[in-house]
Amino acid sequence: MASKPEALEDGYILVLKCPDRKGVVAAVSGFLADNDASIVESNHFNDAMANVFYMRTVFKADGDLPPMTALSAGFELIARRYDMEWSLHPKALRPRTLIAVSRFGHCLYDLLHRWRSGSLPVDIAGVVSNHDDMRSFVEWSGLPFHHLPITQATKAAQEDRFMALAEEARADLVILARYMQILSPQLCERLSGRCINIHHSFLPSFKGAKPYHQAFERGVKIIGATAHYVTTDLDEGPIIEQGVQRVDHGHTPEDIVKMGQEIECSVLARAVTWHAERRVLIARGKTVVFGR
Amino acid sequence: MASKPEALEDGYILVLKCPDRKGVVAAVSGFLADNDASIVESNHFNDAMANVFYMRTVFKADGDLPPMTALSAGFELIARRYDMEWSLHPKALRPRTLIAVSRFGHCLYDLLHRWRSGSLPVDIAGVVSNHDDMRSFVEWSGLPFHHLPITQATKAAQEDRFMALAEEARADLVILARYMQILSPQLCERLSGRCINIHHSFLPSFKGAKPYHQAFERGVKIIGATAHYVTTDLDEGPIIEQGVQRVDHGHTPEDIVKMGQEIECSVLARAVTWHAERRVLIARGKTVVFGR
Amino acid sequence: MASKPEALEDGYILVLKCPDRKGVVAAVSGFLADNDASIVESNHFNDAMANVFYMRTVFKADGDLPPMTALSAGFELIARRYDMEWSLHPKALRPRTLIAVSRFGHCLYDLLHRWRSGSLPVDIAGVVSNHDDMRSFVEWSGLPFHHLPITQATKAAQEDRFMALAEEARADLVILARYMQILSPQLCERLSGRCINIHHSFLPSFKGAKPYHQAFERGVKIIGATAHYVTTDLDEGPIIEQGVQRVDHGHTPEDIVKMGQEIECSVLARAVTWHAERRVLIARGKTVVFGR
Amino acid sequence: MASKPEALEDGYILVLKCPDRKGVVAAVSGFLADNDASIVESNHFNDAMANVFYMRTVFKADGDLPPMTALSAGFELIARRYDMEWSLHPKALRPRTLIAVSRFGHCLYDLLHRWRSGSLPVDIAGVVSNHDDMRSFVEWSGLPFHHLPITQATKAAQEDRFMALAEEARADLVILARYMQILSPQLCERLSGRCINIHHSFLPSFKGAKPYHQAFERGVKIIGATAHYVTTDLDEGPIIEQGVQRVDHGHTPEDIVKMGQEIECSVLARAVTWHAERRVLIARGKTVVFGR
Repeated sequence: MASKPEALEDGYILVLKCPDRKGVVAAVSGFLADNDASIVESNHFNDAMANVFYMRTVFKADGDLPPMTALSAGFELIARRYDMEWSLHPKALRPRTLIAVSRFGHCLYDLLHRWRSGSLPVDIAGVVSNHDDMRSFVEWSGLPFHHLPITQATKAAQEDRFMALAEEARADLVILARYMQILSPQLCERLSGRCINIHHSFLPSFKGAKPYHQAFERGVKIIGATAHYVTTDLDEGPIIEQGVQRVDHGHTPEDIVKMGQEIECSVLARAVTWHAERRVLIARGKTVVFGR
Repeated sequence: MASKPEALEDGYILVLKCPDRKGVVAAVSGFLADNDASIVESNHFNDAMANVFYMRTVFKADGDLPPMTALSAGFELIARRYDMEWSLHPKALRPRTLIAVSRFGHCLYDLLHRWRSGSLPVDIAGVVSNHDDMRSFVEWSGLPFHHLPITQATKAAQEDRFMALAEEARADLVILARYMQILSPQLCERLSGRCINIHHSFLPSFKGAKPYHQAFERGVKIIGATAHYVTTDLDEGPIIEQGVQRVDHGHTPEDIVKMGQEIECSVLARAVTWHAERRVLIARGKTVVFGR
Repeated sequence: MASKPEALEDGYILVLKCPDRKGVVAAVSGFLADNDASIVESNHFNDAMANVFYMRTVFKADGDLPPMTALSAGFELIARRYDMEWSLHPKALRPRTLIAVSRFGHCLYDLLHRWRSGSLPVDIAGVVSNHDDMRSFVEWSGLPFHHLPITQATKAAQEDRFMALAEEARADLVILARYMQILSPQLCERLSGRCINIHHSFLPSFKGAKPYHQAFERGVKIIGATAHYVTTDLDEGPIIEQGVQRVDHGHTPEDIVKMGQEIECSVLARAVTWHAERRVLIARGKTVVFGR
Repeated sequence: MASKPEALEDGYILVLKCPDRKGVVAAVSGFLADNDASIVESNHFNDAMANVFYMRTVFKADGDLPPMTALSAGFELIARRYDMEWSLHPKALRPRTLIAVSRFGHCLYDLLHRWRSGSLPVDIAGVVSNHDDMRSFVEWSGLPFHHLPITQATKAAQEDRFMALAEEARADLVILARYMQILSPQLCERLSGRCINIHHSFLPSFKGAKPYHQAFERGVKIIGATAHYVTTDLDEGPIIEQGVQRVDHGHTPEDIVKMGQEIECSVLARAVTWHAERRVLIARGKTVVFGR
């Protein structure tokens, strides 16, 4: 909550996924009780159709918890018994994040102000853009700005630099905050599961370019925005969050663009926050989002 | 408002559409003032892109207005000068309406209860269905029920009977309240501009069959429903109204179907009400909806 | 889900509340695993401010679960250890419900249609009203209708008859579906925790009479409705659910009344459904609602 | 749209209010036609209860309109005939605006970014604050920042300086963007009709201090924010716009504060935009808001 990423919030987040079998919850909660941990928040989901069980548990201790490595080693025994995919995260560890933008600054402004006021639980390593427009605001915010111009000819090289920056920053998360470039399949692959895009339509309506103009042409009465994980299928990745807004016949495409920007900001911020809090699990092309 | 269609609400609704030119409003409002009419409600819309002007005006008189025919004759002079398409409706004249349903009764129940309580400003002539399930409720409501079973072989004959019923009833409006049959192009043509369908998705997403199941498969976080005029292009007619509802990973297709029913009911009721109040103008594949 | 209340859906719902201590989840889930039960759905909530733990768990067995009494006896040991308030409900057991209405039928229509289509998981024992208007619809629906007129002089006697009907019906739930009478403190007490009212405002705004007219006078831009448990403090009971709808300067009090009716219906239906599914726990004048 | 306030958008906005009489629209639109003006957008509202007519018309010319003074002089004749209160504004003339903040920056950030991107149609003269926290962002935005600390002892003097700044800036509008100070009745009077406050509750619920904490205590399921004109009655001024957001039992007061901030930003931005576009008319303690 605090804007001091150095402050250690105690506790851990355990996230797991396994075939749905009797006794999973008992095994996990028994393990936690044996380690003197208190459950602070816990969510399960049984996907009865696929017979898969998803769980997210936040726990802490009044006194001292065993350290991360000891906890992990202990849990590995349970994980094997139930065929779990799992991960354990110190609650205080915020994802290191790289943001990519183009010339539209609204999502960037919104993300950085939330981050500065402590309400976006990520550590921002820097901002990448194919244009130089946002440099002043990013630098005023105290963050490095990387201008990576792109042309069709230089796309491969530019993406290499993009990826190199992500690696130098040890980025756990890349946010495409209206980056307006289609990533190559190679880059999509390398960022798989840790790259969130905001698309300015209510997917699956109006994929591709100029979705607000498409919405205007069709005469819809509600527009929307969609935050999703990037995959090699354009605008087809797992949806994390969506938002909508009413429009009417009197709104021009320009009005719709502006109204949509507000939805984009709030949808993207929610998706990033939930991802950062390990609330989002990818499940067969869709997401399980454990709300609070 | 009252469920007494015989009660004469005074006043008229004038609806028009013409090339956008200076002086249109002055001409119309001058005509009304000359006829001693008071404007009760008025809306304009200038479609600057297409240079078309749309207007809806409700007017009444303290004393006596000229009768309908005299008003119409007088207005015709103005209409010609400005190349108007126009119509004049006594406010008390509710559209005669035929409702078509299949086995899902939720929209029918909702429409008939609104109608009985006086909040749906239509006169319902009867209910048509390809199944017999709704007979009891329709007849309890005091309305004729027409069972018109349909098979692929009898489709043409069934549609003839359907159309004959609409004609006998002198229906101004046909509502497909989850009728679940695709009308033939011929029937679509004959009902053009006066047939409203409720589609159980947020169009243009998920056209065609089983849209809630499509929505579940795609993992959207918001579902919707769309009321539109029926055209020969399936689910492509001008959209009158849409509504939405949040869903999450825990909702089964069956849950989504149920949650969607509530949206369908309210979206369809709004669309029908606005159509009945002459608030909806069709404009190049879209609608102008003059709200209150 | 099905409209066949006789169909036994297998499984149980366990609801509990206790001081928040380490090991509660482990104890409960261990008990379930020992009894060969699978958890279908589970929610916790730690009220960190009050140090109270709330839990709702739905479980079933592939084979045979111990019968209700055996399960209960076994769980009692755990419950004592952790100072739990708890209850165990066969999932198939729907609350026996009495509905009270006055002259506005919209909530009643909505509840009964949901019930008939199987989407309201209650067993309706009958409908009570101080007016006779709804008799025809209730009887058409196949339910007993009790006309209990009320005057200031007969209020005590009428409430005795009301309560006697609730007792004869062994009602677990009484729904005030726009009943428009203020219950005496005695009746409120006797129905404590099992009587849901729909108030036609966004509480705590506009308590008492004619809330839509109050909303009109104040010039709010959004109206609402609130479903809450009835307590002796008028319109002050724990809130279960609320809904809202935009209005503007052009809406008359009559318009607002009508627009509000739709919110009332959906808010009340959600509150009743959640109560029936044992998702609502009362907590210090507020509610914990375990959503799906 | 553009952030260039110097760019002259052609056209005028005429706003008026008068007793509702026959012929008003004809007189106004006849005047415009006679002056060779085209109506771009027009809204009326007949308050039938109070017999008052409200109108807002945007007009422009293909060629040359008479200058402002000539138009005004001409219109004065009509205004007298119909007892109008009226005003005429060049569309390009944005209200000169002073913003007051305290330590919460979210509304300020939001307003300034909208302003910089050209989507908030005001000219911002400067920012006043009783704290110095926002200086850096305001100055980076290229605007003057005035630090006006306040104590109970210095309140009168501080308000004099506040008012002096508003006068020097010839401010048409003062925005209290979470200023957190209660203005004296004298200052309220002087800013009457041109001072917009954002209150962080869904008024009339939770007036006064710490409304989100009040909302938490009451256990509401929806929170809100309200933009209103400031009057001497605290939180009782005419409401311009409201927004809401769902919350549940799991949200702490701190969560609610954060969720509310987003609503505050968007509600305040809409209210300011509508005020700046002369869409808001004050009407007997309420507002008429002519939407687009």
